[in-house]
Amino acid sequence: MNNGFNEKEREAVYRVIRERRDVRRFKSDPIPEAVLGRILIAAMQAPSVGYSQPWNFILVKDLEVRRKVKEAFSRANEEAQKMFEGGRGEKYASLKLEGILDSALNICVTCDRKRFGPVVLGRTAQPDMDLYSAVCAVQNLWLSARCEGVGVGWVSIIKPEELAALMQLPEGVVPIAYLCVGYTDAFAPEPELKTAGWLPQVPFADLIYHDGWGGKKTD
Amino acid sequence: MNNGFNEKEREAVYRVIRERRDVRRFKSDPIPEAVLGRILIAAMQAPSVGYSQPWNFILVKDLEVRRKVKEAFSRANEEAQKMFEGGRGEKYASLKLEGILDSALNICVTCDRKRFGPVVLGRTAQPDMDLYSAVCAVQNLWLSARCEGVGVGWVSIIKPEELAALMQLPEGVVPIAYLCVGYTDAFAPEPELKTAGWLPQVPFADLIYHDGWGGKKTD
Repeated sequence: MNNGFNEKEREAVYRVIRERRDVRRFKSDPIPEAVLGRILIAAMQAPSVGYSQPWNFILVKDLEVRRKVKEAFSRANEEAQKMFEGGRGEKYASLKLEGILDSALNICVTCDRKRFGPVVLGRTAQPDMDLYSAVCAVQNLWLSARCEGVGVGWVSIIKPEELAALMQLPEGVVPIAYLCVGYTDAFAPEPELKTAGWLPQVPFADLIYHDGWGGKKTD
Repeated sequence: MNNGFNEKEREAVYRVIRERRDVRRFKSDPIPEAVLGRILIAAMQAPSVGYSQPWNFILVKDLEVRRKVKEAFSRANEEAQKMFEGGRGEKYASLKLEGILDSALNICVTCDRKRFGPVVLGRTAQPDMDLYSAVCAVQNLWLSARCEGVGVGWVSIIKPEELAALMQLPEGVVPIAYLCVGYTDAFAPEPELKTAGWLPQVPFADLIYHDGWGGKKTD
């Protein structure tokens, strides 16, 4: 296996990372099986703690199921809106935060907390590593979808216990992400919440420390 | 912004995902500032819940600090080894699981659970979304490092509270990942724990369901 990537390959990797967006506006065109297969295989190539591969991918096409998920979203979203005060609540209400019914496909990524038994290499001191592995699979899925021109939006405004019930998850399996997946007219030039002035971008230099929290560079 | 990537660009994206490895064997060559800068910027382009950007990156070069982290690893690793029974304990002991002192650099990725205040868009129903955002940053870092020929290994066999103390994290900031980062002679052709026969690869078809847990394809 070759260590290096040439300049064009590196640029493609950086481009997909830079141009990935949380998409909420979808076209209904179906995703070809071959494209979906490539995206799911890429997801499964994520790192997993102790090689435990704790993920499953529930492909949700059924509109009846999706309508129930949308209702669970609406309930949680109504509660959420009340938590933002004054003009911020109105601004919140004006944002489009999901594409559950408009997108071609929904995918629920789950984590089986019991896969390969109770003792997993790398989880002995940090038991949440399996959840983090499943998140890495989500990010792989997201990036590979982007290079296929397929948008992904992560809907986190649903109570996990309601989502688990709707997905009929057995005990020990938890939902990690509920994703809307589909083609889109345009990937926004920057994150929508940045463009909307919801929160500012944190400067690069403020996020880097040296040798400990708050540490400045010494050499 | 162009939706599509051409075939060569797509192949580069899939290649970096496929050839990313958890690296434990490092060369000590320093990582040029420009390369490190590109990798860190890519990490900060990860999706974050409500655009909250909860991450920080602590670059750990100081060997004194690293030696203490290595000691914390050794303590947790000794405890872990005892949890594996019989031949599995011996096999566990034979695996190289970190490169804390051998790698050019360590990076501790953290999550500030209070960034931008108590109410964050998208965390109202699922409060752990900020942790998941920081994990997405880790995966971006890992993939971008890979395309630069730089190896990354995630050390999870350290008690989070000990790591937090060593990194001097303030209240409300938690460690997400402790990464060994540096050049390597070779990226392994497949995950080391697969090659070592520690656990088998789960077949693709076993990980896909339709419209609910256990659901088969109907159309």
